[in-house]
Amino acid sequence: MTKTRVLTGITTTGTPHLGNYVGAIKPAIEASQDESVQSFYFLADLHALIKCQDPRRVQQSRLEIAATWLALGLDTDNAIFYRQSDIPEIPELTWLLSCVCAKGLMNRAHAYKAAVAENEEAGNQDPDRGITMGLFSYPVLMAADILMFNANRVPVGRDQIQHIEMARDIAGRFNHLYHGEHFTLPEAVVDEKVEVLNGLDGRKMSKSYNNTIPLFVSEKKLLKLVRKIKTNSLEPGEPKDPDSCTLFQIYAAFASAEETEVMRQEYEDGIGWGEAKNRVFEYLNAHLREPRERYQALMEDPGHIESVLKKGADRARAEAAPVMDRLREAAGLGRFV
Amino acid sequence: MTKTRVLTGITTTGTPHLGNYVGAIKPAIEASQDESVQSFYFLADLHALIKCQDPRRVQQSRLEIAATWLALGLDTDNAIFYRQSDIPEIPELTWLLSCVCAKGLMNRAHAYKAAVAENEEAGNQDPDRGITMGLFSYPVLMAADILMFNANRVPVGRDQIQHIEMARDIAGRFNHLYHGEHFTLPEAVVDEKVEVLNGLDGRKMSKSYNNTIPLFVSEKKLLKLVRKIKTNSLEPGEPKDPDSCTLFQIYAAFASAEETEVMRQEYEDGIGWGEAKNRVFEYLNAHLREPRERYQALMEDPGHIESVLKKGADRARAEAAPVMDRLREAAGLGRFV
Repeated sequence: MTKTRVLTGITTTGTPHLGNYVGAIKPAIEASQDESVQSFYFLADLHALIKCQDPRRVQQSRLEIAATWLALGLDTDNAIFYRQSDIPEIPELTWLLSCVCAKGLMNRAHAYKAAVAENEEAGNQDPDRGITMGLFSYPVLMAADILMFNANRVPVGRDQIQHIEMARDIAGRFNHLYHGEHFTLPEAVVDEKVEVLNGLDGRKMSKSYNNTIPLFVSEKKLLKLVRKIKTNSLEPGEPKDPDSCTLFQIYAAFASAEETEVMRQEYEDGIGWGEAKNRVFEYLNAHLREPRERYQALMEDPGHIESVLKKGADRARAEAAPVMDRLREAAGLGRFV
Repeated sequence: MTKTRVLTGITTTGTPHLGNYVGAIKPAIEASQDESVQSFYFLADLHALIKCQDPRRVQQSRLEIAATWLALGLDTDNAIFYRQSDIPEIPELTWLLSCVCAKGLMNRAHAYKAAVAENEEAGNQDPDRGITMGLFSYPVLMAADILMFNANRVPVGRDQIQHIEMARDIAGRFNHLYHGEHFTLPEAVVDEKVEVLNGLDGRKMSKSYNNTIPLFVSEKKLLKLVRKIKTNSLEPGEPKDPDSCTLFQIYAAFASAEETEVMRQEYEDGIGWGEAKNRVFEYLNAHLREPRERYQALMEDPGHIESVLKKGADRARAEAAPVMDRLREAAGLGRFV
């Protein structure tokens, strides 16, 4: 019985915030505890170079993200947790796949087309202005990420479905050209119920809107940020609508169904914003205190994180190296004896 | 005193022929014996996948080319001789360079533009029809080949100058973005005196014209091929023009100046084509006998070739691995301790 393989890449260009936690990290960590699947989680740091050429930020983000996932209980005995840049077989495979991947496929990638459209709107003569080969060709790298480990399922957002289709296309082409079932065709798994959290200003919580609440800020900073969450001007005593309220939404994402119902009642009973914010802060703070302490301890012990990732890289490479040997052989690049 | 580094890639999609020998192999092997430079020679087998998806042909060509260069006396104690596909740092570096390389640069590459022009001439709706990402992006791989070893000089044909310019461009961009002299800017060295040998039909000897004389065919086959070299219908006794004669040109490429002068006189004295062909065969055969024997022995001992290339790969990786560590660090992909 071979376990189903599930692969998840984690982009490493920011500091994890509550929105990341609710929408991606929490469900992924729960899935990592499922012993009936073999899951792969990786810090997609080669992808990070496309967007960010500030080495300190890339380095800091990788460390923060690794510490976050570990602090929140990623099961690294069951799941294989590694840094993409620790697996040289991935760029090797990227080249093999490049040689069977039609350039036309990349011309149609959403991210590339969006960048071209932006240039055209800005009236730039060169539609490729500011576009690097990294941006243009990253779906091939992503195909290598997935195909390297013959992942069966890749949980993605809607905007990523195209990449999985491209990986299938490239895999099929390689299998056909080199006469064999070298690669499993991966399937996109789109979670329709993904919770999208709003940020301080009421828009979707996102680094690009600068409206995030980082997951592991200090208690003091957390209080300050919760107090900044935009509310309306209703006075204490006036009934309030929980369903249009960012504060309530954040609370509900963490609290149990019962606790959420209690808070709903309080809104109807006219809880004041100041008190509501204190209550939400207290709740979040209680909920995050333990993982925050683990996070802070991990951030002070990068050597431990390094050793966890080294173990993950060793496990990943134990899978990848023999696969690459077979693929090289299939393409005519085998050893002479 | 750091030695000047000279890097030469050898494409691995065919069987070496007399034209390759005279135009490329012989001068390169002579250069490998120069102890004042550190030379790098590599079988460009990752590049081979762009043009050839027949694994047996790629594999056979790699073996034949390695055996040829060794049989002809490549000094592998002085020069570093390796297979590109044995150096995982090269595709790793390719990705780092992709992230700083403008797509517009690749749009202007000669080989890509020629392929697009061919599609347009053929009336194809899609100008990128049949073009892979391998073909489109190989100048980035070539930049990695060169920059990985901080090569100072790259001997190339005229048609390859653009690739060296691209490697300089990419290197300069990386140095600028990551604030350091990470890469030496390579220089193209164009040998204006490169001898171009004609083939059986009088056109340039080339695999694509199917008019080659392979370097290490059997004696019998060599005689047969030399007899097939196109000559005119002049009878024995009639004076012949050596300078427009492929047979004479091939002889001159191997013979000494004195021997060439003697043959020139024979042409003027009206040597018959049959005799001239026998003389050229005898000369070539005498010249090639020893290396051919070494070649055949090597082809029967792929384990030895493997071990020579393994040694080369170890030496190359001893250079490449610490360089990649520094580059990863510079880009923010360093270890956490």
